[in-house]
Amino acid sequence: MFEAAELGRTLSKADFKQAEPELRARLLEAQRRARAAGLPVLLVITGVAGAGKGELVNRLHEWLDSRNVRTHVFWDETDEEKQRPRWWRYWRAMPAAGEIGILFGGWYARLIDDARQGRAGDDDIESELDRIREVEHMLINDGALLVKFWLHLPESEQARRVEARRKDPKSHWRMAPETAREANHYSEFIDLATRVVRETDTGEAPWFLIEATDHRFRDLTAGRTLRRAIDTRLESARDESPVKVSHAPALPATETARRTIVDHVDSDLVLPKREYKQEKRALAATINRLGWKGFKGRHPVVAVFEGWDAAGKGGAIRRLTESLDARLYNVIPIAEPTDEEAAHHYLWRFWRHLPRDGYWTIFDRSWYGRVLVERVEGFASQPEWARAYHEINTFEEQLAAHGVTLLKFWLNITPQEQLQRFEARQETPYKQHKITPDDWRNRDKWDDYKAAVNEMVIRTSTEFAPWHIVPANDKRYARIEVMRIAAEAVKRDLKAKGKKR
Amino acid sequence: MFEAAELGRTLSKADFKQAEPELRARLLEAQRRARAAGLPVLLVITGVAGAGKGELVNRLHEWLDSRNVRTHVFWDETDEEKQRPRWWRYWRAMPAAGEIGILFGGWYARLIDDARQGRAGDDDIESELDRIREVEHMLINDGALLVKFWLHLPESEQARRVEARRKDPKSHWRMAPETAREANHYSEFIDLATRVVRETDTGEAPWFLIEATDHRFRDLTAGRTLRRAIDTRLESARDESPVKVSHAPALPATETARRTIVDHVDSDLVLPKREYKQEKRALAATINRLGWKGFKGRHPVVAVFEGWDAAGKGGAIRRLTESLDARLYNVIPIAEPTDEEAAHHYLWRFWRHLPRDGYWTIFDRSWYGRVLVERVEGFASQPEWARAYHEINTFEEQLAAHGVTLLKFWLNITPQEQLQRFEARQETPYKQHKITPDDWRNRDKWDDYKAAVNEMVIRTSTEFAPWHIVPANDKRYARIEVMRIAAEAVKRDLKAKGKKR
Repeated sequence: MFEAAELGRTLSKADFKQAEPELRARLLEAQRRARAAGLPVLLVITGVAGAGKGELVNRLHEWLDSRNVRTHVFWDETDEEKQRPRWWRYWRAMPAAGEIGILFGGWYARLIDDARQGRAGDDDIESELDRIREVEHMLINDGALLVKFWLHLPESEQARRVEARRKDPKSHWRMAPETAREANHYSEFIDLATRVVRETDTGEAPWFLIEATDHRFRDLTAGRTLRRAIDTRLESARDESPVKVSHAPALPATETARRTIVDHVDSDLVLPKREYKQEKRALAATINRLGWKGFKGRHPVVAVFEGWDAAGKGGAIRRLTESLDARLYNVIPIAEPTDEEAAHHYLWRFWRHLPRDGYWTIFDRSWYGRVLVERVEGFASQPEWARAYHEINTFEEQLAAHGVTLLKFWLNITPQEQLQRFEARQETPYKQHKITPDDWRNRDKWDDYKAAVNEMVIRTSTEFAPWHIVPANDKRYARIEVMRIAAEAVKRDLKAKGKKR
Repeated sequence: MFEAAELGRTLSKADFKQAEPELRARLLEAQRRARAAGLPVLLVITGVAGAGKGELVNRLHEWLDSRNVRTHVFWDETDEEKQRPRWWRYWRAMPAAGEIGILFGGWYARLIDDARQGRAGDDDIESELDRIREVEHMLINDGALLVKFWLHLPESEQARRVEARRKDPKSHWRMAPETAREANHYSEFIDLATRVVRETDTGEAPWFLIEATDHRFRDLTAGRTLRRAIDTRLESARDESPVKVSHAPALPATETARRTIVDHVDSDLVLPKREYKQEKRALAATINRLGWKGFKGRHPVVAVFEGWDAAGKGGAIRRLTESLDARLYNVIPIAEPTDEEAAHHYLWRFWRHLPRDGYWTIFDRSWYGRVLVERVEGFASQPEWARAYHEINTFEEQLAAHGVTLLKFWLNITPQEQLQRFEARQETPYKQHKITPDDWRNRDKWDDYKAAVNEMVIRTSTEFAPWHIVPANDKRYARIEVMRIAAEAVKRDLKAKGKKR
């Protein structure tokens, strides 16, 4: 496959000097337009050791306006990275809208390295390739431009460079020290690279093979390719006009057909006060113990609370947090994104808050906003929320793969109950801030929300991350349910972990 | 000193129930007003082990609108934290404008712990107390509200709680496991606490001693204190009306008196092209080697580039970065802050980008904007920029104490040279983006900037972080100077580090 990059193409110094000014001007112009259009550009640079990835990045820094270019390497994993799902470190590095992020090695270097060292078997490689295709697809769908460069050298040229460095390190200081080591495994590396590159060479995220034997040819080709990719992307974007209206499907007309999962929740379940107190006391002690046990065993927990307005999310969250030691959890309320958050893929703000192993993060509303409020209110377009189900499942699968206990609660109340609570809130001074005109407006769209909830539960209740629909007309019943489910799930996962060791 | 918190004050359940609703309403109201006013609230909660810090935090989460309250603990230091100056972890936790940050133990717990374990000697304690007073002063000056709670228990009560827990762990699960250990050192702990609390009990950042024997009394007192602190702060803020005009002092009238440090720079220094090429080649190799050596030795470098518009900052930075492996550095351009950055103390955005040990961060413009452009253009008020010199020295001292090589360059050109470069920029297509109307406006204020530069150099050239004024009328001369100074400084620091080991 790499033969196409072994043609011995070169560029004379004179030709390079002649071509450079125009390329610089056009690259800068492309960069400025990308910035104006709010296009995030992800540039993945990887390839054969010794091909001059570092030199190329320096050159790009020289050509581009470096004020919105950031370079990221993924060498030694820090413990903050190790203690979170594997892709967390890449999400940290994602460029914001209008920025260029250069990802050294991207998510490819590690995969090839793991495979070569025997740390990843055939199945691991396959599933990571799947993951890569999915994430790239998701980023591109979200509007990012992904440009992937593979810098290639034939074996003889790599050997020549390593040898030259050995003889005169001073003249070849630009080569990273590990290059020599890598060079001993050329053919093994190329076999793996062939597989990885071929399997991730998709129409939307193609690889650009760049012949790197001649550094002028390499740099000019890379610069031109990047420029063309940005321009092409900006051209094609012009035709699209995202329609931002509500896309909640009308529910069928007949009463029976309109019944959804939510309608099947038994809203009459209640828990007498005395039993509530007893159970709460016992469960709180259990959860506290599990919190410390999980801390010592470095077990992470993510809890997601969704539900109708006034369904009692806050109260249920508090019953959990009162049980846990305050040092072990953080509650992340999801409201308006900050501008840094708004400039990234919508999942970025959630990745950002994932707990380290041993801690809990409790989301008061969550990424499900995408398929609930954003869908119903039309903040997300139909294709956006429609593909979100799969994106969310992929995200949650990664949490599960890392060993996170993921708890998802939908607190369900009836419209009648909601009305009573709204009215009660308006009468209690310290609860008045909880009721806004928005709440009344959302109430009018009950049926739209019901359809959205129904679809959400159907599409995102997975084996590794099931939804728990909690009847919440009775607050006491709901709170105990939440505590019970949380305690059982964490206990089960801790036990399973203990066995694995 | 803690006798005032051993009075045995209690509160009956009935009294608590009666007082709670009003307190809640007023707390929420205070919180809402703080949010509207953009007031960052820093709540430090510390004290005797077993006093119920966790319980209190849970209570506060219950009373407040938890959507803008974040809790932070500072237990195990992660390697990302260890590999940066010590206070980096606290800066990560600073609340944004309008938010409440609860800092468990704050910067006090570690100090007391280090002292008790013998890890910090008398001098260390003194200098850390200095540091604490300085940082608190700085945060308050910047408009933050700092509330410090010390939860106290008499020895007998602490012992009773530990004993009760031993006998019936289930009923006392709320107590953190390390409490029992701590309890064995009560008087030793109190001696240290007395010193720390007394020395950091300043008029602007007083400690509130809270008697914690009775949990209802504890919570109500804490809630009321917090409410009062917010209200008082908001009242007093009303009188202030920050004047946002230029405060650059007029320079004296006579030609001689107007001469500043900048005027004494020899602007005729040039470097012939041939020598430039030779020296660049040699220095680049040296810097590259030092980069890898520093990476292996986990040595961090921070370089700051300031200078007149068109002085050649970008070019000088590129000569450094071309020498370094692209994986070892990041260039952080300082322009408009993001909204998350603007919602914090102005130093926050720089703390955020400090390199881990082994890496370089190069700032293209920096925290010195505070005493340069912000001062001259009136974006910072006179008291704001006037106190910034000391704040900056304190910040840089912390970098130095961590072992960072800090390089500060002022690239100096004459007004005539600047004019020529502006005109040249307008004629070169790929350089046109570098020249804006702002540049011409700034040029008109040359004398104001000159005075600001002069004062900056005088006030912030310290033993641990000297300014390097680089004559930059000749680009080649300037670039070699920057490379030479950087190489020498890093080499010297690496050598010193090697000796220490």
